[in-house]
Amino acid sequence: MILMKIGFVGTGVMGGAIIKNLMAAGHSLTVFNRTKQKADKLITAGAVWAPTPKAVAAQSDIVFTMVGFPKDVEQVYFSKEGLFAGLHKGATAIDMTTSRPSLATKIAAAGKQHGFNILDAPVSGGDIGAQNATLTIMVGGDEECYRQMIPLFKTIGKTANYFGLAGAGQHAKMANQIMIAGTMTGLTEMLLYTRQAGLDEQKILETLSSGGADNWSMDNYVPRILRDDYTPGFFARHFLKDLRIALEEAAKMGLDLRATNEAKRLYEIMVDIKGLGNQGTQGLINIY
Amino acid sequence: MILMKIGFVGTGVMGGAIIKNLMAAGHSLTVFNRTKQKADKLITAGAVWAPTPKAVAAQSDIVFTMVGFPKDVEQVYFSKEGLFAGLHKGATAIDMTTSRPSLATKIAAAGKQHGFNILDAPVSGGDIGAQNATLTIMVGGDEECYRQMIPLFKTIGKTANYFGLAGAGQHAKMANQIMIAGTMTGLTEMLLYTRQAGLDEQKILETLSSGGADNWSMDNYVPRILRDDYTPGFFARHFLKDLRIALEEAAKMGLDLRATNEAKRLYEIMVDIKGLGNQGTQGLINIY
Repeated sequence: MILMKIGFVGTGVMGGAIIKNLMAAGHSLTVFNRTKQKADKLITAGAVWAPTPKAVAAQSDIVFTMVGFPKDVEQVYFSKEGLFAGLHKGATAIDMTTSRPSLATKIAAAGKQHGFNILDAPVSGGDIGAQNATLTIMVGGDEECYRQMIPLFKTIGKTANYFGLAGAGQHAKMANQIMIAGTMTGLTEMLLYTRQAGLDEQKILETLSSGGADNWSMDNYVPRILRDDYTPGFFARHFLKDLRIALEEAAKMGLDLRATNEAKRLYEIMVDIKGLGNQGTQGLINIY
Repeated sequence: MILMKIGFVGTGVMGGAIIKNLMAAGHSLTVFNRTKQKADKLITAGAVWAPTPKAVAAQSDIVFTMVGFPKDVEQVYFSKEGLFAGLHKGATAIDMTTSRPSLATKIAAAGKQHGFNILDAPVSGGDIGAQNATLTIMVGGDEECYRQMIPLFKTIGKTANYFGLAGAGQHAKMANQIMIAGTMTGLTEMLLYTRQAGLDEQKILETLSSGGADNWSMDNYVPRILRDDYTPGFFARHFLKDLRIALEEAAKMGLDLRATNEAKRLYEIMVDIKGLGNQGTQGLINIY
């Protein structure tokens, strides 16, 4: 593989793990994060710090972004000290944040004007997937650009699927989150019922896993709940953001997704009312 | 294995398949069904017809029941021509219908008075599981009786777990159905979003299956939906019955299961308003 000058904006749980895999493959990394100390370990490991997204862009041929909310994405790309102020012509920027499809379209259009290649490429697989380079990557944007990035995607994930023009990767991720809204609310209410009925939780988990009720979320999160572990694989406040985007997009397309809407209301109680947004998504059980 | 005189009340999709497996193991079967013609093939295959549940009971050491609704179960056990009017002392009756935990308790108490052994043993795994003898069986009732029935359970399923006194098998099944309410509503709304956003449905299915959104219902029902196949593996009207029981029981225990309640409302639209209760549960997508 050709070794490249890669920039990375956002060195959180996910970004940090992805950066390590990119460095392990031999690429040189320039990084920025809003809270610098979260990048300290990466700098010790060989990444170069840059003081702004613009400065990251100036040092890089390809820049990944993975931040929290759409407003953060907007700032990273469009502000005075943002990526678009520093990228070279012909450079590529890839947003891995789960964000609005319409924002992905806006970034792609602005990028095209300036001669940059833009992809939206949100991921699934969580912290474990990022660490083990087994992420699933959902890509939207120019197909030729996607093809050129496949070797890089293979360095950090197991699957990178192309879904169409700018925003299509974000739409695919929304479909993923809508499915997970069902498994998370289902496993939460299943476990509440199990406890209240006085059944053996471990035996229920084994029984349900062996049949038609089986799902990844149950297999991975119920054991954590059973040992009162609510540390985030995936922050509840980020999941709520995703559900809000999914429902806004659905409404724009004329869809009323009632079960997903109920899931959003439940996560609103968890995040906005109970203040548990820094727990993992499995903490939903703590609102009942 | 000791060959036994087994009775079976309810020769529908599930019951019929289970009966075939019992006969294949060498047991002699006496059967009753409300609509006799649904038992014709089994009779041709060697099962003996009896005109009432009482008459089934009179010919059998062990009787299985698998009918539609709790009111049907009640009639099968308690009516003048019901099982309790025909069973021998020391005989065993096993209700595999998904039904009310409180009804299971009532049957067990009445059975005990008459010297019968009673188990509640609802199953999961659907038509395929019944045919291939890979059902998961959730058992409540006397534990010693459960132990004696294990060889028979192994003839028709892959797992038979004991959950506690009468009604506990039904409670375990309710937990199972609550989980499935989440996967079914989730996959339905996921697929609606996918279509409306113009994404490749097959590629979305593959992508979601490879990550944290993976679940049995999606893997098994989305392919059926994609070929417009709404034939019942499991009738929507039976699933709605299960969700109603689950929510009634939850309410009795002081639980407000909001996501499951929304799922129930959606299946009410499908079954009560749109009249699609004879489709499989995957037909939920037809209400949107």
